Amino acid sequence: MNLLLLEDGDFVAEGRAVVRDRRLRHLHEVHRAESGDSLRVGRLGGPMGEGRLLRLEAHEAELEIRLDQPPPAKLPLTLLLALPRPKMLKRVLQTVAAMGVPRLVLLNSYRVEKSFWQTPFLEPQAIREQLILGLEQARDTALPDVLVEKRFKPFVEDRLPALAADTLGLLGHPGAYPACPRAVEGPVTLAIGPEGGWIPYEVEKLQAAGLAPVQLGERILRVETAVTALLARLF
Amino acid sequence: MNLLLLEDGDFVAEGRAVVRDRRLRHLHEVHRAESGDSLRVGRLGGPMGEGRLLRLEAHEAELEIRLDQPPPAKLPLTLLLALPRPKMLKRVLQTVAAMGVPRLVLLNSYRVEKSFWQTPFLEPQAIREQLILGLEQARDTALPDVLVEKRFKPFVEDRLPALAADTLGLLGHPGAYPACPRAVEGPVTLAIGPEGGWIPYEVEKLQAAGLAPVQLGERILRVETAVTALLARLF
Repeated sequence: MNLLLLEDGDFVAEGRAVVRDRRLRHLHEVHRAESGDSLRVGRLGGPMGEGRLLRLEAHEAELEIRLDQPPPAKLPLTLLLALPRPKMLKRVLQTVAAMGVPRLVLLNSYRVEKSFWQTPFLEPQAIREQLILGLEQARDTALPDVLVEKRFKPFVEDRLPALAADTLGLLGHPGAYPACPRAVEGPVTLAIGPEGGWIPYEVEKLQAAGLAPVQLGERILRVETAVTALLARLF
Repeated sequence: MNLLLLEDGDFVAEGRAVVRDRRLRHLHEVHRAESGDSLRVGRLGGPMGEGRLLRLEAHEAELEIRLDQPPPAKLPLTLLLALPRPKMLKRVLQTVAAMGVPRLVLLNSYRVEKSFWQTPFLEPQAIREQLILGLEQARDTALPDVLVEKRFKPFVEDRLPALAADTLGLLGHPGAYPACPRAVEGPVTLAIGPEGGWIPYEVEKLQAAGLAPVQLGERILRVETAVTALLARLF
């Protein structure tokens, strides 16, 4: 937790916040903070700044808050991701938030196991928890939008063309395709497939929606690693 | 497991191998393989190719092996990493092997907790296990060399200058430094610090050994994510 992230309900007055829960434990156990210490804070959906610990007790901490900096810029990106397996989903959500992705679409694909859609980690509250861990890690305050699209065809046919319009549309796919471009200018729509890759029908549909296949070398990377590698190369 | 990785002891004759253990379970439970199926195989430290399942039984599988391709090229890189916490170490070892790092130095730093050096995951056999998982993921057969350097100063003063000679030496560090370069030519020596970063004394020593500080933006990434992002940008 490199940023103490405050929500509206934590504020007890202008410039005063009280935290309990997981964040309080973190202050005690990891930061080993003491009254008087200053730490980096941010307001969810708002600015960042500094908090000074007025009181740090077993059951709550009170801070004086000064918020005067904007959060870091987001990447100009819409990321489409075939729904990963639940354990990977948690990590990917953290990574996506930490890397500054503003919009994530979790999409079905033929090679996504049906059971993955049953995971409790897809509940809005569970998604939000993982995103917040990513924001706290990277020092950001702006939650990414996450869309859950359980039906591939209607999303890709009816909605993706508008989302991808006026962006550089890319589709990560192994094969004899151009290498993923580097340091691009302007907004990007990037689709990353499931373990085992998109099936040919899906590649066709994504191409028809405006995404061009690119590859990332012959090594097969886990989804989380592929996401990070593609974003680091593109931006 | 995108590659069935065979060791010398698995070969029962020229072009014939028998597997048991974790790999056999994987064939049954994940690949749901059947006799006659073909799959990607490699020989640890050797070439890659195809294996045909002659027999797949509950207690063992026998394969006919044809090895005729070289493994993918490694990155021209020596990676120095402040020893991460044990849970992260396991994942980082997999990532390092999957991304094609040929040589990893796990190094002490002031901000590495002393307890991290006690983890059983630093045993050579435990390191090897994680590296093999990374090779199986990425389809590679060549184990990276891993050096464990528990003393920062003697390593950085006495051995690093020779290791880093004739390479582009880089030191990932937050601050007002140039951005990490992209798509470099030639060999690189890259040092990545612990959570919280290198302390100023360590930065000085690493600079004196030939490494120049570079930064990766204002977001603070987990070690595993930082490793992937830096490698994807450099190569």
